[in-house]
Order: sequence, then structure tokens, then C-alpha cells
Amino acid sequence: MRVTTQETAASAVGNDALHGREAYGVWSPAVTPIDERLDPDSRRFVNHVKWLLENGCHGVALFGSTGEATSFSVDERMQLLDAVVEAGVSPRRLMVGTGCCALTDSVRLTTHAVQCGCSKLLMLPPFYYKNLSDEAIFSSYAEVIERVGASKLRIFLYHFPKLSGIPITSGAIDRLLDAYPKAVAGVKDSSGNVEHLDGLVTRYPDLCIFPGTEKLLLHGLRTGAVGCITATANVNAAGIRTTFDAWRDGETGVDALQAAATSIRETIESFPMVPALKYLVSEMHDDTSWLQMRPPFLPLDEATARQFSASLNEVGFTLGNA
Amino acid sequence: MRVTTQETAASAVGNDALHGREAYGVWSPAVTPIDERLDPDSRRFVNHVKWLLENGCHGVALFGSTGEATSFSVDERMQLLDAVVEAGVSPRRLMVGTGCCALTDSVRLTTHAVQCGCSKLLMLPPFYYKNLSDEAIFSSYAEVIERVGASKLRIFLYHFPKLSGIPITSGAIDRLLDAYPKAVAGVKDSSGNVEHLDGLVTRYPDLCIFPGTEKLLLHGLRTGAVGCITATANVNAAGIRTTFDAWRDGETGVDALQAAATSIRETIESFPMVPALKYLVSEMHDDTSWLQMRPPFLPLDEATARQFSASLNEVGFTLGNA
Repeated sequence: MRVTTQETAASAVGNDALHGREAYGVWSPAVTPIDERLDPDSRRFVNHVKWLLENGCHGVALFGSTGEATSFSVDERMQLLDAVVEAGVSPRRLMVGTGCCALTDSVRLTTHAVQCGCSKLLMLPPFYYKNLSDEAIFSSYAEVIERVGASKLRIFLYHFPKLSGIPITSGAIDRLLDAYPKAVAGVKDSSGNVEHLDGLVTRYPDLCIFPGTEKLLLHGLRTGAVGCITATANVNAAGIRTTFDAWRDGETGVDALQAAATSIRETIESFPMVPALKYLVSEMHDDTSWLQMRPPFLPLDEATARQFSASLNEVGFTLGNA
Repeated sequence: MRVTTQETAASAVGNDALHGREAYGVWSPAVTPIDERLDPDSRRFVNHVKWLLENGCHGVALFGSTGEATSFSVDERMQLLDAVVEAGVSPRRLMVGTGCCALTDSVRLTTHAVQCGCSKLLMLPPFYYKNLSDEAIFSSYAEVIERVGASKLRIFLYHFPKLSGIPITSGAIDRLLDAYPKAVAGVKDSSGNVEHLDGLVTRYPDLCIFPGTEKLLLHGLRTGAVGCITATANVNAAGIRTTFDAWRDGETGVDALQAAATSIRETIESFPMVPALKYLVSEMHDDTSWLQMRPPFLPLDEATARQFSASLNEVGFTLGNA
């Protein structure tokens, strides 16, 4: 990670800069539990979402890559969202993943989310066909926006080229902002690339830009991003939130807190991310059901799990509440 | 394309080698028409499938990459298959694409296809998450096979790493053949790589191996493949079938026919494949409805369409019946 001199210059902005933004802070893309038949487990899902919101997360993203969104059918995803909203979770603290390969699936999920009161949508572009032009990316989003109704939507464009194969180009973002200035609210930048993040915050100061890793939390906050949406918040919401709060409160120890969060992240991400997180969540909630995985994911094997635990011990990571 | 000396040695097999195979010959993955609301158009779909079967194709693959499978919902795909089967098309001449990212979607589509009498399935692996292990690929297919029932299925594994990002490794194929020797019937190899094709036919002589391009038709037939499943058969079924028949009948002009088919293929594939095919199909059926595209695809723009027509004229390609 390259740290630019921009940071010092921009850090004076900090602290109050996030008031009035559509979304900001520490968001966790919740992992999705399944039962012994490999079906989604809405009871455990609701409990985990609530736990995250009570233990450090400003908000929770449902059905991101960490939540194995693409491994569930449209109906399964809608039932899970229904359960979360019916359990009393505020839709304002949710961001719902609704971007699919099939236009009609994206429209159905987005319409349903809006009907549930969830206006914040985390949207992948259609991700099967590759080398899409800016116009193709634009038209994919535009067709969903037109069908659902632009006034209801606050879309966070999901840039995760390593998995989707489809970078959300500035050409596509420019076109979308031109056509739907209110509906396009932000970008989740899961590139992990600091130059890409810097480019987004510079070019789109009015969008809510979230890096997809807490490793870029402090750098992002100091340069114009609004927080992070990060897989590892499933198990280290407290540590990441502490970093955010220290930045907000102007504390001098913030860099050390960032370094500690980064160290934990680097350890976790050196293992297969989603199985590793579910392994930790099963320990956190003392519930082995969380170890079950739906294909194509598989649980960590025993040797890897032991190695994972040992690595976490080395960096002094302990699971726990905020 | 490297042509090996294997060809001469193996060509003596030829001709009668395909009797009794689960599938062989020239297959077209049908393009899928949409109406002005961007919804699937079952009437035009049925007509095109019948046209292909009456004009050179041994069989038709529904919902491959050329058919924009991933751009349609599970319900849309099931309705299209229902329409084709209800129109009297023999399920034996169909291969149905049913591999999705979500296990439950794959199971639902596969169960439905089997209920329609279609036992031949063309199955992508789950394609969102990348770097899957052999065991992960195995378990993804195994879970579908177990849920639907192995005795009913003849699965053609769909190897298309450029789009899916998931190569179907020999490690995964070995595991599947070991567990489900009857259910795994073949491989569609859309790598376009002759060495990969050679590897498959050598390692799996009992599987039906289809290259995904007619450029490898004759080479494949001479070395142990069973035909081809090729996008461009939507518009050049006659030319490709003529090549196949000449090989089957031991005609001396077969290499020249292959060269002609290859030349047409190379021209078409130098343009965006699916929009280019729909452009040609609209001319073939004299029906501009075929020009409509569902995002993320867009129709060819006018300049590209003109250039495309000119290129086809140069290689002497004319649309027409077998």
C-alpha cells in the first residue's frame, strides 16, 4: 500500500466531513449461514446481522461476495431479507446486494428490497460476459433503474474485478451520474488498489466511496472516502470501529489502531476468506452450524483450521464484543 | 492451430466411430430472441430451433453462452424450454444448459429439463468465485447430481474458462467419473485450444468431447472428438454439416470444406459474437426483431454492421439452407 502525502493535507477535513452522507462508517457484508440441508438459515442470519449492528458496525451489507450472494437463488435471497426486516432491523442500516447476471433477477431483487424499505443497493454488474463496454455497463444498470424507478434508489456500484471480471469504469460511472444523479450514491471499491481508490475519491467527491478492505480505512477517510465495507468486520467489527472512531475524534493513536486492524486483516485474508470467516463466526457464536458451506465453497479442512488459529494467535487476535 | 501427426494415424478410425455415442455431430447453441420489452420470445425461439434442426444441425443446445443463458432468469429459461418441447421438438436432439452460480437454481433447471424428457445437460460450474479447487468443482456438480438423481442425467461439462473463469480440470473430471460414471457423458471444450482438446480426447476416450468451434471439427473427428457445438452453426449449419458429412463419408474434399468453414468462422468471430450472430439471424429469417438485445449485450452499431457485412462478402459467405 502506497501512502501519499495527500493524507496529511486532507486530514484536516476529517471528522465532520461525513455528516449528511447517504452512508458512511464501518459496514460488514454479513456471512450467510446455511443449515444441514445447505439451505439458508434465516434465524441465525438475523441473529448475526443484529449482533454486527450491536457490536461495532454502522451498517450491514446483505448479499455481498462475502455473503455468498451468487450461491443463493432470488427466492432464497428475498426470504432472508424478509426475515431480517421482519425482525425489526432498520432498513436504513442495511445495504442489499441485488446485482445479478440476469436483468430480470436484478429487477426482481431490487424491487423487493425497495418494497422492504431498503433503498441502499449494492449492485454488481452482470458478470458472465466479459470485456463489456462503458455503454454496456451503463445500459445494464440503466435498465434496472428505469424499471424500478430512479427516485427510490440509492445504488452503490460494486467494483470487484477479481471476482466479477467487470471493472466499473469511470466512463460507465460518468454516464450513470449524468443520467441518474440521485440514484447513483456511491461505489464499493473492492479492487484493494489504493491508486484506484484515490482516483475515485478525487473524481467523484460527492459519491460515497467505500474501500472493500479496512486496510484502506484510515487512508480513505483522510482522502475523502466514507468508511469501509469489509468482510473481516464479521469478526473484527470492534477493532475496525475503534479505528474509525479514533479518526472521527481526532485521537493521536489512530495510526496504531489502523496498523493493528491491518495486521488482523492480513492474517485472515491469507486463508480462503469466506470459509475462514465462517470458521471464526462459528467460534464467536459458539455454534458449529456456521461451519457448513454451500458449494462451490467447502469448509476449512482441519489442518488449515489449526494453522489459521495459530496465525491469529500470533497477531494477538481475540474474538469478542466491541 | 497446431496439427499433429496423430491425425493421419487416427483418421483410419473415423467414419463409424460415432455409432452409439450419447451425442455427436454438429450442434448449434441457439441464439435466444427477445421482444421489444426485452423479454424472451418463445415463438421465434421455437421457430429458430426447428429451423436449425431442419437445416443441418444434429442437435441444438439451448441456453449456452451464445444463447445468453445467464441473462435470463430460471423461470424465463424454463418457459422457453417448455415452449420448445411442447412444439414437438425431440428432447433427444436437445442439450439444455442448466449450470448456474446458485446450487438451487442449477437443481431447479436440471430437474425441470429432465421432467421435459431432456437428459442431456450442458453444465457450467458455478462461475462467480474464482480459483476453485478440484474438490470444489466436484462438489458443485455432485450436489446437483445427487439431488436430481444420477440415473437420469447425461451431463456435458462446460469448459469455457475465458467467460466462466473456472477451468474444468482433469482432477475434477476424474473425481466426477469415479463417482458418477454414467451421469458424466462428455465435455464441451470452449477453450479454443487444440492442445487442451487433444488432452481431453486422449485422457477420456469414452466421453463425448465436443470442441466449441468448428475450426477444430475435422481435427477433432480425426483424433477422437465427436463433432462440435458451435455458435456459428446458427448461421452456417449447412457449411459445417457438409464438412462433417464429408468426413463421415470419407470424401477427399473434406479438408477444403473445413478450410471454407474455418474462414467463415474467423470472419464472424472477429466481431462481437452474439450481436453479430443475431444480426445475421435477423437477415436469415428476414425479421428485424432479432436485432433486439438484452443488456449487457447491445446490438451492433450501424458502422460495425456495415463492416461486418463487407467482411462476410469478402469470404464469399451467403446465408441459406443446407
